[in-house]
Amino acid sequence: MRYSAPLRDLSFVLNELLDAPAALAQMPEHAGLDGESLMAVAEQAGDFAAGAILPLNRGADETGCRWHGGEVEMPPGFQQAYRDYCELGWVSICAALADGGQGLPRLMFSVVNEIFSAASHAFVMIASVNHCAAICLRRSASPALQARWLPALASGRVLSSMCMTEPQAGSDIGLLSTRAEPDGPGGYRLSGSKIFASGAEHGLSANIVHLVLARIAGAPPGSRGLSLFLVPKWLDDGARNAVHCDGIEHKMGLHGSPTCALRLDGALGWLVGEPQRGLAAMFPMMNEARLMSGLQALGLSELAWQAARGYAHERRQGRSPAGLQPCPLVDHPDVQRMLMTQKAWNEGARMLVHWTALVIDAAESHADQAHRRESAELAGLLTPIVKGFLCENAQQALSLALQVHGGHGYVRETGVEQLVRDARVITLYEGSTGIQAQDLLMRKVLADGGQRLALLTGRVQAWLESPGAGAEGLAAFTGPLRTLLAQVRAATTLLAGRERGQAGAALASCCSYLRLLGHLVMAWWWARAAAACLAVHEREHEHEHKQGWYAGKLATAHFHYGELLPETRALLAAIEAAPRPWALALAE
Amino acid sequence: MRYSAPLRDLSFVLNELLDAPAALAQMPEHAGLDGESLMAVAEQAGDFAAGAILPLNRGADETGCRWHGGEVEMPPGFQQAYRDYCELGWVSICAALADGGQGLPRLMFSVVNEIFSAASHAFVMIASVNHCAAICLRRSASPALQARWLPALASGRVLSSMCMTEPQAGSDIGLLSTRAEPDGPGGYRLSGSKIFASGAEHGLSANIVHLVLARIAGAPPGSRGLSLFLVPKWLDDGARNAVHCDGIEHKMGLHGSPTCALRLDGALGWLVGEPQRGLAAMFPMMNEARLMSGLQALGLSELAWQAARGYAHERRQGRSPAGLQPCPLVDHPDVQRMLMTQKAWNEGARMLVHWTALVIDAAESHADQAHRRESAELAGLLTPIVKGFLCENAQQALSLALQVHGGHGYVRETGVEQLVRDARVITLYEGSTGIQAQDLLMRKVLADGGQRLALLTGRVQAWLESPGAGAEGLAAFTGPLRTLLAQVRAATTLLAGRERGQAGAALASCCSYLRLLGHLVMAWWWARAAAACLAVHEREHEHEHKQGWYAGKLATAHFHYGELLPETRALLAAIEAAPRPWALALAE
Repeated sequence: MRYSAPLRDLSFVLNELLDAPAALAQMPEHAGLDGESLMAVAEQAGDFAAGAILPLNRGADETGCRWHGGEVEMPPGFQQAYRDYCELGWVSICAALADGGQGLPRLMFSVVNEIFSAASHAFVMIASVNHCAAICLRRSASPALQARWLPALASGRVLSSMCMTEPQAGSDIGLLSTRAEPDGPGGYRLSGSKIFASGAEHGLSANIVHLVLARIAGAPPGSRGLSLFLVPKWLDDGARNAVHCDGIEHKMGLHGSPTCALRLDGALGWLVGEPQRGLAAMFPMMNEARLMSGLQALGLSELAWQAARGYAHERRQGRSPAGLQPCPLVDHPDVQRMLMTQKAWNEGARMLVHWTALVIDAAESHADQAHRRESAELAGLLTPIVKGFLCENAQQALSLALQVHGGHGYVRETGVEQLVRDARVITLYEGSTGIQAQDLLMRKVLADGGQRLALLTGRVQAWLESPGAGAEGLAAFTGPLRTLLAQVRAATTLLAGRERGQAGAALASCCSYLRLLGHLVMAWWWARAAAACLAVHEREHEHEHKQGWYAGKLATAHFHYGELLPETRALLAAIEAAPRPWALALAE
Repeated sequence: MRYSAPLRDLSFVLNELLDAPAALAQMPEHAGLDGESLMAVAEQAGDFAAGAILPLNRGADETGCRWHGGEVEMPPGFQQAYRDYCELGWVSICAALADGGQGLPRLMFSVVNEIFSAASHAFVMIASVNHCAAICLRRSASPALQARWLPALASGRVLSSMCMTEPQAGSDIGLLSTRAEPDGPGGYRLSGSKIFASGAEHGLSANIVHLVLARIAGAPPGSRGLSLFLVPKWLDDGARNAVHCDGIEHKMGLHGSPTCALRLDGALGWLVGEPQRGLAAMFPMMNEARLMSGLQALGLSELAWQAARGYAHERRQGRSPAGLQPCPLVDHPDVQRMLMTQKAWNEGARMLVHWTALVIDAAESHADQAHRRESAELAGLLTPIVKGFLCENAQQALSLALQVHGGHGYVRETGVEQLVRDARVITLYEGSTGIQAQDLLMRKVLADGGQRLALLTGRVQAWLESPGAGAEGLAAFTGPLRTLLAQVRAATTLLAGRERGQAGAALASCCSYLRLLGHLVMAWWWARAAAACLAVHEREHEHEHKQGWYAGKLATAHFHYGELLPETRALLAAIEAAPRPWALALAE
């Protein structure tokens, strides 16, 4: 497969829509980063992705990871690619300057990881995990632990893994049973079994630090009794810690990422954060992983779309309504529909996910404290939307990319089916879509009476009332967006009332509600994209752009509003339909 | 995995909804078949499926088919299972009595093949193909060819394959280049390359007959110049015919079905039907294959749903809104939504596909000629709906079955991911969803000014006006159904007008239109199912059934109308949105 980083669209998103340089100028530590610098990094990432990572992705599937007697052999070429990745500094984009990192904004990480995710989902799983671990340690670990591990993570000499799940405890981490016994000053001995620990064993780095949720002896049951520990594979005295990989899963896809079963036999670990505050310490890491899932969704779907578009231009079958000779597939209206669906989801995802990254930058680095606080709230709302909405949309887009290839898409050689298999996990791990939807509706929207939601709807409303939204030609977007905004507010009120009437009654609609909010944010960004295109149109001579890039973007915005946004009508109907007692239909 | 044939629901569909015995009583060759006999056959099929076929399905994936030097080794156990399958008479359910078959109605074939498809998609691919081939030969082959091959096909001693696709000719069979030169009386020598020929090489049967589309020397280009040939692997003198398997595809799934590349090097073949009438001769076989895809959709999705329901009852994670202890997944409202979605799609598919089979029985065997003709027209309308609507719905249901399993669904061991991979082909082969949608909209609906469509809408209308549709409690169904019927008529008029305005302009909406019609038929059957449940409720004491099977079925009907049917709102909006010139957004 071939991939070329979508630099033109990235430039549109970063510079024309988000106006990222202006936003970053308000953040002291990022001020001065201009649009050209951002795009230069994106371009380098694109070159490395296409040249060094993408060629390994087939082998990551065909050969995959292999487990022999406790050790994991990574796919062919990963070792060298990882070395180059570290040397070129990709491992430490966002790491603090003080730790030897490059201190770039989260936005840059987001762009670069969209690109790397397209090149190889498996590679990015292992190569980007330190970003998440470092965020966790920076927030919660003691100065000593930070000093010991943050530079090592920034250099890539040490890689990390997140060890939560156990056989009996998946979505319900309160059921975890791994135990920790105090042992010497600050140390603990951990015992238990973890599963689904991605990248918990391999030989890519000199050492691996596991971030492990466990229960200190005597702590209460449930999720509130959990603590977080850092457990290195190799101890500082050169001894092997008592943490062992008992095997890796055989999965539908993502064969290049080792999904490990891990056994802790009194392994030495160090507390990260306060005892029994393990979830709070873990969550920043988990949130990063959720945002990364959104980037994987976008990257995988972009690669598949490039393949589908290429195939549709090359393969000749059937006649177009007008023609006599066999025409390229792309001339068929239904193939156009399939391609446009992918394009609209992908470009919508790109606006949404990189905007979220910029919101997180504002939450961490904006000069104004109130703005930081508000941005953090907004980021909390957007995280489950990015994870839940984009990962589901990507499944649909990827399946259509395969479909465009016809029977050839089902054959391994073509490459798209691997992407479909690889991507199937993104709605499952880091909290399934249902878990995201529950988090969004219950914790992020209903719990505070809709105050956090108002941060989002308020921005949409403010934009609709801004002069820019009144531009000629924009009514086809602002009209439906205004309607949707009112519908979102009404649906929220409806569900809040239903929940007040009976605890848990709103949960039956949580996935529909998540998609509804996803549509609101995405439709807002598509409207803003359309406004940007129309503004260019105003400024320039008409015919110059009529067939050009902006006309294509504007057509995609129209497609989104005409073909994808109407899903909201079905969602609203489903939300309005009163839930019934389904249990009796589901008895065994 | 475990599977138990859904006998209770099948009995409801056959005996309570379709009233199959009464319908069959009007067909002289099937009169006298009562409901108990139908269910007895279904029960035996269920036993054979669960006991003899299902246990092979994992090996069909893991070991798959293996190609060595022109020969294909089938998955472990297939040889024995196929022998038993023939001995028990499953191979010849519908074959004519005169050919040694059992002469049962198509409806029975439909029920039995839903069940076998659940047990193993790969096995049913090879084991049911003779049904399609026999239909083709019975319609078009000379008496001599029929006498030579029909009994052999009915016994299963000979298996068959359908050879259409070539590397340059997929959906566009007019591009086929395999050539046939006359050679002796009635004989031809065929030369060319075929791909994607399922079951075109294996050792299960003593011989294989290939039904091959080719062009007689001198025939015009395009699909009208094609003729159909029967090409046996072994000739009657014991010589090997010059038809060779050059390899099998490595696919995303369905590893137990050999997808062959076939080379014809002057292979001897016999004309089936008239020269240059190959498509007409092939189409009855193709239509059967399309209906079988619908059965595969249903079977695969039923097995996955049984697994998901079982897992949801067994696995405990999280707390239900009311509870304190970990509860089974099935207590979570969002899990209920996922399970109900699968259940509603599956049971809707069961009504639709088996009704279609009964319509085909009427087309072939009804005592009244006008009824036969009308049924044949209706079957032509229903075939692309069964293929296009049910196969897409099954993808959604299967994906949800995997989703219910969480991360464990992504692991091969659980078994569901195989079903997702296997099923991915059903929207691609035997005419992709787009091809079905084009066939439905252009050939079946617009070409005759909606006359054929009126056969369907007229039946829905007649039912809505019948006394049964006025029963108490049914308004929640008849209201939306009446609305949808009017919307379907309006959408048809809209698209007809658009097509008159510009040839091909309606094509952009063909897939939305197919789904809209699919919803109409399925919603009609759900309304009828609800009516049947309410009638039982009327007849019996209320509390006796309140918690029972009929209450569960009625709840599922409500779910379908509340959660799945609203998709029509999105489809209508997409159809109404005027198509735009998307091509400029799709340039490379």
